[in-house]
Amino acid sequence: MPRTLVKDLAAHIGERVTVYGWINTARLQRKMQFIVLRDHTGMVQVTNKRTEPPSDVEEALESTSIESAVKISGTVLANPVVKLGGLELVPDSVEVVNAAVAPLPINEQTGIDQRLEWRFLDLRNPARHLIFDVQTTVEEAMREFAYGEGATELHTPKFMGTASESGAEVFKVKYFDRFAYLAQSPQLYKQMAVSGGIDKVFEIGPVFRAEPSFTSRHATEFISIDVELAWIDGVEDVMSFEERMLARVLAAVAEKHGDAIRELLGVEVVVPELPFPRIAMREAIELLTAQGWKPEKNKGDLDPEGERSLSALVRERHGREFVFITDFPASVRPFYHMRHADDPTLTHSFDLLWKGIEITTGAQREHRYDVLVKQAEEKGVDTGPLASYLTSFRYGTPPHGGLGAGLSRILMVMLGLDSIRESTFLFRGPTRLEP
Amino acid sequence: MPRTLVKDLAAHIGERVTVYGWINTARLQRKMQFIVLRDHTGMVQVTNKRTEPPSDVEEALESTSIESAVKISGTVLANPVVKLGGLELVPDSVEVVNAAVAPLPINEQTGIDQRLEWRFLDLRNPARHLIFDVQTTVEEAMREFAYGEGATELHTPKFMGTASESGAEVFKVKYFDRFAYLAQSPQLYKQMAVSGGIDKVFEIGPVFRAEPSFTSRHATEFISIDVELAWIDGVEDVMSFEERMLARVLAAVAEKHGDAIRELLGVEVVVPELPFPRIAMREAIELLTAQGWKPEKNKGDLDPEGERSLSALVRERHGREFVFITDFPASVRPFYHMRHADDPTLTHSFDLLWKGIEITTGAQREHRYDVLVKQAEEKGVDTGPLASYLTSFRYGTPPHGGLGAGLSRILMVMLGLDSIRESTFLFRGPTRLEP
Repeated sequence: MPRTLVKDLAAHIGERVTVYGWINTARLQRKMQFIVLRDHTGMVQVTNKRTEPPSDVEEALESTSIESAVKISGTVLANPVVKLGGLELVPDSVEVVNAAVAPLPINEQTGIDQRLEWRFLDLRNPARHLIFDVQTTVEEAMREFAYGEGATELHTPKFMGTASESGAEVFKVKYFDRFAYLAQSPQLYKQMAVSGGIDKVFEIGPVFRAEPSFTSRHATEFISIDVELAWIDGVEDVMSFEERMLARVLAAVAEKHGDAIRELLGVEVVVPELPFPRIAMREAIELLTAQGWKPEKNKGDLDPEGERSLSALVRERHGREFVFITDFPASVRPFYHMRHADDPTLTHSFDLLWKGIEITTGAQREHRYDVLVKQAEEKGVDTGPLASYLTSFRYGTPPHGGLGAGLSRILMVMLGLDSIRESTFLFRGPTRLEP
Repeated sequence: MPRTLVKDLAAHIGERVTVYGWINTARLQRKMQFIVLRDHTGMVQVTNKRTEPPSDVEEALESTSIESAVKISGTVLANPVVKLGGLELVPDSVEVVNAAVAPLPINEQTGIDQRLEWRFLDLRNPARHLIFDVQTTVEEAMREFAYGEGATELHTPKFMGTASESGAEVFKVKYFDRFAYLAQSPQLYKQMAVSGGIDKVFEIGPVFRAEPSFTSRHATEFISIDVELAWIDGVEDVMSFEERMLARVLAAVAEKHGDAIRELLGVEVVVPELPFPRIAMREAIELLTAQGWKPEKNKGDLDPEGERSLSALVRERHGREFVFITDFPASVRPFYHMRHADDPTLTHSFDLLWKGIEITTGAQREHRYDVLVKQAEEKGVDTGPLASYLTSFRYGTPPHGGLGAGLSRILMVMLGLDSIRESTFLFRGPTRLEP
């Protein structure tokens, strides 16, 4: 018999159906057996009355372990007493497709590290499963938006011939008789695509950072959302692209998963108003300093505590979850960020904070070869390994700008999760390469 | 003035507009200047009459090098004599945004290796640019199809803790105080997702193969399209998914780019009939042997020449571009392919050939732990590094199957290109890590 999804059962009351899924719980009483079957769309109660002698169904339900994969056929009945959708399945056939070993190695009380060891079992929890349903919707909405803006989907190489952007944090790979390096971001390549006449570049793909960092926001491998827009009039075009994209994403998530997110994760998805507030870094620091904040390092930048405080302040004063910080000092930005024409100590750049967490860095790029080389030299950057990148600016590169955002961070903030370990399918950190 | 795209100029006849783009060609005559400006949507002739003394526009057009980035404002006139869409732009302002160095390092006669050195300039050629417009449409259509089937978009890790699938061809990465390995395919991880209750897995992402191979079909890094479907009734479900997805893709490409592909690449995009023909490997070998084909190695498999011959035969006899080869011998398939219940020498597997090239490998997977371990041992696979993969089959893994396909190969075949070097943004091979 063809499969009926649990979410569709209400349309089959009085009919015989077959559901496929896992045994979520079993309550075996003296006269009755109550099983909850779970598939990726929901849960249904299976209610079986014991008989004398016991039926095959009774024996199968009695002996099958939790999390075994089963196909159960039976009749769908309306039963207002049942919590799961007011219906139950009265089984006439149970097929154990693949039995699970008992006992299970994790349960509701297991901590995150042990859960990650058993990630495939961990993901069977509907609240965890939901994260990846939401991820799918997030990416779908982002791409729909980007395609609508005329973007080209590009896949930039992850192998680089030189450790060009910042040697210190790059993974090194034995590559036949030489070495390759894993891309920390598609930065150089997406700019090369703009030089190649691709009008708007869009990529969602992995990047690699050899940082021995153990915070809730860092990973050695993560999925970066990258955008690069040609022929912009200024960095405002990039911020506008991003805020409209995120508004589209949040509208799609709220519509498709808003109820489930509220129920399973206790979080309200808010579709943001546009435009997001914009605060220049200088003003942000003044506001925070007035509150008593003292930056520890990186004069002219915010530390994570500063980011949290600024977001809290914006939320308090304006009721907004998002805020762009703009006009970062050149001293804390890479050489390729374009500087203000009237004040070369400032850049046409931004970060986007969401509920206290930085989720994006963006900027207009310097597209004039001479200026770019000068800025690299001023920063003490070794331009040797950058030769092919720099050369691409000598043949009519248009003005452009772009952004990079972390997918797992966006999901973490959106869904109120503790760590990107929760919003990554299989997390990779300095001490985690398994499973 | 806001930008008008070249493709939209016909709607602005008699109006003043500004176009942004590159100087494609310049024909400077005694009385007239004819410039062709190119953006990512097309080309337009800019026609300027010389004056005495010369205007600023005339001087700018005279001196600006080919491939410089410019903004040109002027009036759109209908002119049936002009080949480019029967219109021309009479300029009143030319802004050179970023001048190109002359002479250009590549031209129409440059060979592929040198073109790849200057890939960003190479991509300004509209025929090359078109490849990535098509790529965008291909991915969009694939995802629309996959989402419609209920698939979850997943990103599997590229860092693996062990070189599990096949040690020989895996790239090794220095990973803090140990080593990591780059994933050759998401195989193990997408199966783990199925064990985790993800009903249908979909991923488009990079994979890495340390093969010193220099054919037109191989790269050390390429984009793999991966699908894994839970609760299948058999491998036919996987083939059905793929053929319906490809039919959707080709319909979208034909509709959106069919004319441009015909004009720029001389190829006709054919939307295939469903279902594709299916030929069991045994029958394929009989057919080819009858034609005089002698397999060089891999008894029970086809070499590239065999694949070309079989495709030619199917095209000749049935007029079809695609053919599934099914039921490969277990001897030439990995241990995790499910075997026939009534003949363990055969697997429930397939390759898909398109115009003589293998673009996909797929199979139903063995989901029963005991059988899987037995098959691994029979093949002499070291099960130690596979421990966490194998363990995931002990907790109720449902029947499942999937496929892996190469994006660049699909584009190469679809667009009649000589090599995946042409259908990859920045190709990576054993001797190519730049640009």
